Amino acid sequence: MEARKHLIHWLRDAHGMEQQAESLLSRQSERLESYPDMKARIDRHIEETRSQAQRLEECLAKMGEDTSAIKDLGGKITANMGALMNAASDDEVVKNAIGSYSFEHFEIASYRALIAAAEVAGEEYIAEVCRNILAEEEAMAKWVEQNLPTVTEAFLGFETAGMSGKR
Amino acid sequence: MEARKHLIHWLRDAHGMEQQAESLLSRQSERLESYPDMKARIDRHIEETRSQAQRLEECLAKMGEDTSAIKDLGGKITANMGALMNAASDDEVVKNAIGSYSFEHFEIASYRALIAAAEVAGEEYIAEVCRNILAEEEAMAKWVEQNLPTVTEAFLGFETAGMSGKR
Repeated sequence: MEARKHLIHWLRDAHGMEQQAESLLSRQSERLESYPDMKARIDRHIEETRSQAQRLEECLAKMGEDTSAIKDLGGKITANMGALMNAASDDEVVKNAIGSYSFEHFEIASYRALIAAAEVAGEEYIAEVCRNILAEEEAMAKWVEQNLPTVTEAFLGFETAGMSGKR
Repeated sequence: MEARKHLIHWLRDAHGMEQQAESLLSRQSERLESYPDMKARIDRHIEETRSQAQRLEECLAKMGEDTSAIKDLGGKITANMGALMNAASDDEVVKNAIGSYSFEHFEIASYRALIAAAEVAGEEYIAEVCRNILAEEEAMAKWVEQNLPTVTEAFLGFETAGMSGKR
Protein backbone atom coordinates (compact mmCIF):
# COMPACT_ATOMS: atom_id res chain seq x y z
CA MET A 1 0.00 0.00 0.00
CA GLU A 2 1.36 3.39 -1.04
CA ALA A 3 0.52 5.22 2.21
CA ARG A 4 2.40 2.58 4.18
CA LYS A 5 5.45 2.86 1.93
CA HIS A 6 5.57 6.64 2.31
CA LEU A 7 4.91 6.43 6.05
CA ILE A 8 7.98 4.21 6.50
CA HIS A 9 10.05 6.47 4.25
CA TRP A 10 9.02 9.60 6.21
CA LEU A 11 9.62 7.92 9.58
CA ARG A 12 13.18 7.21 8.41
CA ASP A 13 13.55 10.81 7.26
CA ALA A 14 12.28 12.02 10.64
CA HIS A 15 14.79 9.80 12.43
CA GLY A 16 17.62 11.30 10.38
CA MET A 17 16.25 14.75 11.10
CA GLU A 18 16.33 14.12 14.86
CA GLN A 19 19.90 12.83 14.67
CA GLN A 20 20.80 16.03 12.85
CA ALA A 21 18.89 18.07 15.43
CA GLU A 22 20.88 16.49 18.25
CA SER A 23 24.12 17.32 16.46
CA LEU A 24 23.11 20.94 15.72
CA LEU A 25 21.79 21.58 19.22
CA SER A 26 24.85 20.03 20.86
CA ARG A 27 27.21 22.24 18.88
CA GLN A 28 25.13 25.30 19.78
CA SER A 29 25.02 24.44 23.46
CA GLU A 30 28.77 23.81 23.65
CA ARG A 31 29.50 27.25 22.23
CA LEU A 32 26.98 29.27 24.24
CA GLU A 33 28.64 31.29 26.99
CA SER A 34 26.65 34.43 27.73
CA TYR A 35 23.08 33.17 27.43
CA PRO A 36 22.46 30.66 30.25
CA ASP A 37 18.66 30.50 29.80
CA MET A 38 19.02 29.59 26.14
CA LYS A 39 21.71 27.02 26.93
CA ALA A 40 19.47 25.40 29.57
CA ARG A 41 16.49 25.23 27.22
CA ILE A 42 18.62 23.78 24.42
CA ASP A 43 20.07 21.17 26.78
CA ARG A 44 16.56 20.13 27.79
CA HIS A 45 15.58 19.85 24.14
CA ILE A 46 18.65 17.70 23.40
CA GLU A 47 17.29 15.15 25.89
CA GLU A 48 13.86 15.33 24.25
CA THR A 49 15.45 14.92 20.83
CA ARG A 50 17.27 11.73 21.85
CA SER A 51 14.03 10.31 23.20
CA GLN A 52 12.22 11.30 19.97
CA ALA A 53 14.76 9.35 17.89
CA GLN A 54 14.15 6.29 20.08
CA ARG A 55 10.38 6.62 19.75
CA LEU A 56 10.75 6.80 15.96
CA GLU A 57 12.88 3.63 16.02
CA GLU A 58 10.07 1.91 17.92
CA CYS A 59 7.59 3.08 15.26
CA LEU A 60 9.80 1.70 12.51
CA ALA A 61 10.18 -1.61 14.35
CA LYS A 62 6.40 -1.75 14.71
CA MET A 63 6.15 -1.32 10.91
CA GLY A 64 8.43 -4.36 10.51
CA GLU A 65 11.47 -2.30 9.53
CA ASP A 66 15.01 -3.24 10.46
CA THR A 67 16.47 -0.35 12.46
CA SER A 68 19.94 -1.84 13.01
CA ALA A 69 21.51 0.27 10.24
CA ILE A 70 19.48 3.40 10.91
CA LYS A 71 22.44 5.39 12.23
CA ASP A 72 23.69 5.74 8.65
CA LEU A 73 20.69 7.74 7.51
CA GLY A 74 20.18 11.44 7.71
CA GLY A 75 23.02 12.50 5.46
CA LYS A 76 20.80 14.48 3.14
CA ILE A 77 19.20 16.50 5.89
CA THR A 78 22.63 16.94 7.47
CA ALA A 79 23.79 18.70 4.34
CA ASN A 80 20.67 20.88 4.25
CA MET A 81 20.59 21.96 7.81
CA GLY A 82 24.26 22.09 8.70
CA ALA A 83 24.31 25.32 6.76
CA LEU A 84 22.02 26.86 9.36
CA MET A 85 24.87 26.87 11.91
CA ASN A 86 26.53 30.24 11.99
CA ALA A 87 29.61 29.68 14.09
CA ALA A 88 31.72 32.12 12.11
CA SER A 89 29.42 35.13 12.29
CA ASP A 90 29.84 37.90 14.86
CA ASP A 91 26.13 37.66 15.65
CA GLU A 92 25.97 33.89 15.91
CA VAL A 93 23.60 33.85 18.90
CA VAL A 94 20.93 35.72 16.92
CA LYS A 95 21.54 33.84 13.67
CA ASN A 96 21.48 30.49 15.49
CA ALA A 97 18.21 31.38 17.21
CA ILE A 98 16.73 32.21 13.79
CA GLY A 99 18.11 28.95 12.38
CA SER A 100 16.77 26.94 15.32
CA TYR A 101 13.34 28.48 14.92
CA SER A 102 13.34 27.55 11.25
CA PHE A 103 14.58 24.03 11.99
CA GLU A 104 11.91 23.50 14.65
CA HIS A 105 9.29 24.37 12.05
CA PHE A 106 10.89 21.96 9.59
CA GLU A 107 10.33 19.34 12.28
CA ILE A 108 6.80 20.57 13.05
CA ALA A 109 5.75 20.33 9.39
CA SER A 110 7.42 16.91 9.06
CA TYR A 111 5.39 15.56 11.99
CA ARG A 112 2.18 17.08 10.66
CA ALA A 113 2.73 15.26 7.35
CA LEU A 114 3.61 12.07 9.26
CA ILE A 115 0.43 12.29 11.34
CA ALA A 116 -1.67 12.65 8.18
CA ALA A 117 0.14 9.70 6.56
CA ALA A 118 -0.22 7.52 9.67
CA GLU A 119 -3.95 8.27 9.76
CA VAL A 120 -4.35 7.41 6.06
CA ALA A 121 -2.42 4.17 6.67
CA GLY A 122 -4.60 3.34 9.68
CA GLU A 123 -1.60 3.39 12.05
CA GLU A 124 -3.16 5.18 15.00
CA TYR A 125 -0.35 4.26 17.41
CA ILE A 126 2.21 5.96 15.15
CA ALA A 127 -0.04 8.99 14.69
CA GLU A 128 -0.21 9.31 18.48
CA VAL A 129 3.58 9.03 18.93
CA CYS A 130 4.00 11.76 16.30
CA ARG A 131 1.40 13.97 18.01
CA ASN A 132 3.37 13.72 21.26
CA ILE A 133 6.65 14.57 19.53
CA LEU A 134 4.91 17.43 17.68
CA ALA A 135 3.84 18.94 21.02
CA GLU A 136 7.48 18.93 22.20
CA GLU A 137 8.68 20.57 18.99
CA GLU A 138 5.96 23.21 19.23
CA ALA A 139 6.90 23.99 22.83
CA MET A 140 10.55 24.45 21.82
CA ALA A 141 9.57 26.64 18.85
CA LYS A 142 7.35 28.75 21.12
CA TRP A 143 10.21 29.22 23.58
CA VAL A 144 12.55 30.40 20.82
CA GLU A 145 9.87 32.74 19.46
CA GLN A 146 9.21 34.28 22.86
CA ASN A 147 12.90 34.66 23.65
CA LEU A 148 14.17 35.90 20.30
CA PRO A 149 13.50 39.62 20.97
CA THR A 150 15.12 39.36 24.42
CA VAL A 151 18.17 37.59 23.01
CA THR A 152 18.46 40.15 20.21
CA GLU A 153 18.24 43.04 22.66
CA ALA A 154 20.76 41.37 25.00
CA PHE A 155 23.16 40.81 22.08
CA LEU A 156 22.91 44.47 21.01
CA GLY A 157 23.32 45.52 24.66
CA PHE A 158 26.56 43.52 25.01
CA GLU A 159 27.82 45.02 21.75
CA THR A 160 26.95 48.59 22.75
CA ALA A 161 28.71 48.07 26.09
CA GLY A 162 31.82 46.97 24.17
CA MET A 163 31.50 43.38 25.38
CA SER A 164 31.21 40.36 23.14
CA GLY A 165 27.75 38.88 23.16
CA LYS A 166 28.33 36.86 20.03
CA ARG A 167 27.56 33.58 21.75
CA MET B 1 26.38 52.86 17.06
CA GLU B 2 26.39 49.07 17.24
CA ALA B 3 22.61 48.59 16.97
CA ARG B 4 22.56 50.68 13.81
CA LYS B 5 25.41 48.68 12.27
CA HIS B 6 23.66 45.38 12.95
CA LEU B 7 20.32 46.76 11.78
CA ILE B 8 21.81 47.66 8.39
CA HIS B 9 23.55 44.29 8.17
CA TRP B 10 20.34 42.40 8.97
CA LEU B 11 18.29 44.50 6.54
CA ARG B 12 20.75 43.47 3.82
CA ASP B 13 20.48 39.82 4.90
CA ALA B 14 16.68 40.09 4.78
CA HIS B 15 16.84 41.54 1.28
CA GLY B 16 18.98 38.60 0.13
CA MET B 17 16.56 36.25 1.86
CA GLU B 18 13.61 37.72 -0.06
CA GLN B 19 15.47 37.42 -3.35
CA GLN B 20 16.08 33.79 -2.52
CA ALA B 21 12.43 33.36 -1.52
CA GLU B 22 11.31 34.69 -4.89
CA SER B 23 13.60 32.25 -6.67
CA LEU B 24 12.50 29.25 -4.57
CA LEU B 25 8.80 30.07 -4.85
CA SER B 26 9.02 30.66 -8.59
CA ARG B 27 10.64 27.29 -9.18
CA GLN B 28 8.00 25.60 -7.03
CA SER B 29 5.13 27.33 -8.81
CA GLU B 30 6.47 26.48 -12.29
CA ARG B 31 6.61 22.78 -11.43
CA LEU B 32 3.26 22.47 -9.65
CA GLU B 33 0.67 20.71 -11.81
CA SER B 34 -1.86 18.88 -9.66
CA TYR B 35 -2.31 21.32 -6.76
CA PRO B 36 -3.96 24.49 -8.13
CA ASP B 37 -4.80 25.99 -4.72
CA MET B 38 -1.18 25.76 -3.59
CA LYS B 39 0.05 27.19 -6.90
CA ALA B 40 -2.35 30.15 -6.57
CA ARG B 41 -1.25 30.87 -2.99
CA ILE B 42 2.42 30.63 -3.91
CA ASP B 43 1.90 32.97 -6.88
CA ARG B 44 0.25 35.50 -4.59
CA HIS B 45 3.16 35.24 -2.16
CA ILE B 46 5.67 35.76 -5.00
CA GLU B 47 4.07 39.18 -5.59
CA GLU B 48 4.24 39.95 -1.87
CA THR B 49 7.87 38.83 -1.79
CA ARG B 50 8.86 41.21 -4.61
CA SER B 51 7.16 44.06 -2.78
CA GLN B 52 8.93 43.10 0.46
CA ALA B 53 12.33 43.31 -1.27
CA GLN B 54 11.43 46.79 -2.50
CA ARG B 55 10.33 47.89 0.96
CA LEU B 56 13.63 46.64 2.41
CA GLU B 57 15.52 48.64 -0.24
CA GLU B 58 13.61 51.74 0.89
CA CYS B 59 14.59 51.00 4.51
CA LEU B 60 18.25 50.68 3.50
CA ALA B 61 18.07 53.93 1.52
CA LYS B 62 16.55 55.60 4.58
CA MET B 63 19.56 54.38 6.59
CA GLY B 64 21.83 56.07 4.05
CA GLU B 65 22.91 52.85 2.40
CA ASP B 66 23.66 52.53 -1.27
CA THR B 67 21.32 49.90 -2.71
CA SER B 68 22.57 50.03 -6.30
CA ALA B 69 24.63 46.85 -5.91
CA ILE B 70 22.20 45.04 -3.68
CA LYS B 71 21.25 42.44 -6.27
CA ASP B 72 24.61 40.78 -5.71
CA LEU B 73 23.87 39.90 -2.11
CA GLY B 74 22.10 36.88 -0.80
CA GLY B 75 24.55 34.30 -2.02
CA LYS B 76 25.05 32.76 1.41
CA ILE B 77 21.36 32.30 2.05
CA THR B 78 20.97 31.00 -1.50
CA ALA B 79 23.36 28.20 -0.68
CA ASN B 80 21.55 27.44 2.59
CA MET B 81 18.03 27.39 1.34
CA GLY B 82 18.45 26.05 -2.18
CA ALA B 83 18.86 22.67 -0.53
CA LEU B 84 15.27 22.88 0.66
CA MET B 85 14.02 22.39 -2.90
CA ASN B 86 13.21 18.75 -3.52
CA ALA B 87 12.66 18.58 -7.25
CA ALA B 88 14.14 15.09 -7.55
CA SER B 89 12.04 13.35 -4.90
CA ASP B 90 8.92 11.37 -5.73
CA ASP B 91 7.08 13.20 -2.96
CA GLU B 92 8.26 16.69 -3.88
CA VAL B 93 4.92 18.41 -3.19
CA VAL B 94 4.99 17.28 0.44
CA LYS B 95 8.73 17.91 0.90
CA ASN B 96 8.43 21.35 -0.69
CA ALA B 97 5.52 22.26 1.58
CA ILE B 98 7.64 21.24 4.59
CA GLY B 99 10.57 23.25 3.21
CA SER B 100 8.38 26.29 2.55
CA TYR B 101 6.96 26.16 6.05
CA SER B 102 10.49 26.06 7.48
CA PHE B 103 11.65 28.88 5.20
CA GLU B 104 8.65 31.06 6.17
CA HIS B 105 9.68 30.65 9.80
CA PHE B 106 13.25 31.55 8.95
CA GLU B 107 11.79 34.77 7.56
CA ILE B 108 9.45 35.25 10.53
CA ALA B 109 12.33 34.95 13.01
CA SER B 110 14.50 37.25 10.89
CA TYR B 111 11.84 39.97 10.97
CA ARG B 112 11.31 39.52 14.72
CA ALA B 113 15.04 40.11 15.25
CA LEU B 114 14.94 43.07 12.85
CA ILE B 115 12.00 44.63 14.70
CA ALA B 116 13.87 44.33 18.01
CA ALA B 117 17.01 45.84 16.45
CA ALA B 118 15.06 48.69 14.83
CA GLU B 119 13.46 49.50 18.17
CA VAL B 120 16.83 49.50 19.97
CA ALA B 121 18.21 51.77 17.22
CA GLY B 122 15.20 54.11 17.53
CA GLU B 123 14.16 53.49 13.91
CA GLU B 124 10.40 53.23 14.37
CA TYR B 125 9.65 53.56 10.65
CA ILE B 126 11.78 50.50 9.89
CA ALA B 127 10.24 48.57 12.78
CA GLU B 128 6.80 49.29 11.31
CA VAL B 129 7.81 48.18 7.78
CA CYS B 130 9.15 44.96 9.28
CA ARG B 131 5.95 44.41 11.29
CA ASN B 132 3.92 44.70 8.09
CA ILE B 133 6.16 42.23 6.27
CA LEU B 134 6.06 39.91 9.30
CA ALA B 135 2.25 39.81 9.10
CA GLU B 136 2.46 38.73 5.44
CA GLU B 137 4.97 35.98 6.25
CA GLU B 138 2.85 34.77 9.14
CA ALA B 139 -0.24 34.61 6.90
CA MET B 140 1.68 32.53 4.34
CA ALA B 141 3.04 30.22 7.06
CA LYS B 142 -0.46 29.79 8.48
CA TRP B 143 -1.78 28.88 5.04
CA VAL B 144 0.90 26.23 4.56
CA GLU B 145 0.26 24.86 8.05
CA GLN B 146 -3.48 24.59 7.47
CA ASN B 147 -3.07 23.02 4.05
CA LEU B 148 -0.24 20.58 4.78
CA PRO B 149 -2.50 17.71 6.00
CA THR B 150 -4.82 18.17 2.97
CA VAL B 151 -1.89 18.21 0.55
CA THR B 152 -0.38 15.13 2.21
CA GLU B 153 -3.69 13.26 2.01
CA ALA B 154 -4.19 14.34 -1.62
CA PHE B 155 -0.67 13.19 -2.50
CA LEU B 156 -1.25 9.76 -0.91
CA GLY B 157 -4.65 9.58 -2.64
CA PHE B 158 -3.09 10.18 -6.07
CA GLU B 159 -0.45 7.55 -5.32
CA THR B 160 -2.98 4.97 -4.12
CA ALA B 161 -5.06 5.58 -7.27
CA GLY B 162 -1.96 4.84 -9.35
CA MET B 163 -1.69 8.45 -10.53
CA SER B 164 1.31 10.70 -10.03
CA GLY B 165 0.69 13.37 -7.43
CA LYS B 166 4.36 14.16 -7.03
CA ARG B 167 3.90 17.79 -7.97
